[in-house]
Amino acid sequence: MATIKDIAAKLGVAVSTVSKGLNGASDISDELRELVLDTAIEMGYVSKRMRTEGTRKLCIFIENMDYESIDYFAHDVVIGFKHMALKDNWHVTVVPVTTAFQENTRYDAYMMKNGFTAAFLLGFTQEDRWIKQLSTTAFPTVLLDNFIPMNPSVGYVGTDSNEGIFSVISHLKQLGHTRIAFLNGPENSMISQQRHQAFLKSMETLGLSPHKNLIQFGYYGSECAKYFVPDFLELGATAIVCSSDIIAVGVIDECKKKGFRIPEDISIIGFDDLPLSTTLTPPLTTIRQNRLELGKSAYLSIDGLIHNIPVGQLLLRPNFIQRESTSAAIPR
Amino acid sequence: MATIKDIAAKLGVAVSTVSKGLNGASDISDELRELVLDTAIEMGYVSKRMRTEGTRKLCIFIENMDYESIDYFAHDVVIGFKHMALKDNWHVTVVPVTTAFQENTRYDAYMMKNGFTAAFLLGFTQEDRWIKQLSTTAFPTVLLDNFIPMNPSVGYVGTDSNEGIFSVISHLKQLGHTRIAFLNGPENSMISQQRHQAFLKSMETLGLSPHKNLIQFGYYGSECAKYFVPDFLELGATAIVCSSDIIAVGVIDECKKKGFRIPEDISIIGFDDLPLSTTLTPPLTTIRQNRLELGKSAYLSIDGLIHNIPVGQLLLRPNFIQRESTSAAIPR
Repeated sequence: MATIKDIAAKLGVAVSTVSKGLNGASDISDELRELVLDTAIEMGYVSKRMRTEGTRKLCIFIENMDYESIDYFAHDVVIGFKHMALKDNWHVTVVPVTTAFQENTRYDAYMMKNGFTAAFLLGFTQEDRWIKQLSTTAFPTVLLDNFIPMNPSVGYVGTDSNEGIFSVISHLKQLGHTRIAFLNGPENSMISQQRHQAFLKSMETLGLSPHKNLIQFGYYGSECAKYFVPDFLELGATAIVCSSDIIAVGVIDECKKKGFRIPEDISIIGFDDLPLSTTLTPPLTTIRQNRLELGKSAYLSIDGLIHNIPVGQLLLRPNFIQRESTSAAIPR
Repeated sequence: MATIKDIAAKLGVAVSTVSKGLNGASDISDELRELVLDTAIEMGYVSKRMRTEGTRKLCIFIENMDYESIDYFAHDVVIGFKHMALKDNWHVTVVPVTTAFQENTRYDAYMMKNGFTAAFLLGFTQEDRWIKQLSTTAFPTVLLDNFIPMNPSVGYVGTDSNEGIFSVISHLKQLGHTRIAFLNGPENSMISQQRHQAFLKSMETLGLSPHKNLIQFGYYGSECAKYFVPDFLELGATAIVCSSDIIAVGVIDECKKKGFRIPEDISIIGFDDLPLSTTLTPPLTTIRQNRLELGKSAYLSIDGLIHNIPVGQLLLRPNFIQRESTSAAIPR
């Protein structure tokens, strides 16, 4: 890693000037400070102050997700993170981020200029520019539901997809279901891929045959149901597993529109256990992601990374929550 | 979960008697105390005292492993765990365990009778009786290198096998090796299975063809080398990846006996980065498992489980350590 001396040598300025630039001193010009910061970032410099607990500023970057109300997935994740971080005297800033913002601002540069020691990223996708930049960052960084290979500064926290999907399929098998459909999230998401594999593996482990046309990638919006549910029903599905409660909302609507009763004619299962899942008609059987605990785990992972514990992956167990949207299969 | 009242009802004794039995009071008979404890365990009772930080006793159970000297894998793991636990005012006891001991003593019973809040288990195998009992324990428990499905009280910490093996195969590919042998640990170990899959996947990802007869399960002793290395050499392997530094010691010896120079004639890679790997001739290229950090992570996971964060898996990144036992492949 580059030192202050290296930066000074590259710029042909005094070490004290670099030091002033890095520390935001007011007696150098804005242009020179920018130049020092940009060069430092380019050379992969991370100051000791940023690696230790001195600065006490953490950032939560959030994209594609709302978090302001308890109805949203990210709400409790943010609360859980803050709960732990504040106890350790960190100041936590939540920064919503767009793709346009990522085009104009490098991740490391933003972290450095704002004096953040480490960050937690929620809702980013593999295509995001910052995700690509994370392959080389030296800032302790934790991602929800995303994994960056081969960079020990970056950790991943999430929920164990295998256990979640396995408990769903076990439940449905016990109820006599064999024609089980799966409406997943988008194909380009790591988590959707995990759940896809988990679905196939669970079916196999439990001696059930997956039906190719009953397994589809959609997206995390309730409207996606209308593109897939009619086919599922036509193909004789007796149960539909959804990769989020929001998708399940659309699936329930679509099934009702087609005259199917839930759970008498078709069983439906969600994923996440958002507050809305108890208010649906019927209340939704689902997989609970422990959102407060995901936030706490993200903090624990960041704390580990800051202390040189190279946390790569931390997966929490989900809980299977049985409500009233599932019942015994009736062969059609 | 059963309450003190339930236990009292089942035994037909007063609640205060059960309470005395559970708290080790001296004014009830030994027999009655044993009966209360056994019934409590049988009914799955775990006292609040044991679930909170009041008791402050943790146990490290260790099997099939030495830990007394820094030369052993478990030494630093234990140190790392204690380092974190002592800061939180836990008392940590290390208890070596045999299979015979497990036949005579149930895990939950031992934990309860000795007042342990939670435990960390090292070196156990899938066949161990205690591992089977962990499917139903309510005691927060963390395993090194072993995973118990579907019990949210039990966590797993370990090193990411995929990243470790991938960096080895990348290194060997860069050096021009294509006939790469893999001498793994025992086939019935979860970690050996993981590394086996990681080997196949890494070879595929890097466009190399695995050779069936060059991929073998052995065991974690240097003597196992003699059963496999002669075949590897005969089949034209130019590199041998070992699933532990201890195995690599045997592989180096065996290659030397057959007149092969290391690394000129054959490259050898270990796993773990034990202290001995620097003292071998030549010093061993290997994958570092961060042992202090594994111990710290085990403590963090236990701390999480005690606070109802259902940590299922926590995987650390390994580090690739290049020394002198690998060099460019010379086609033979």
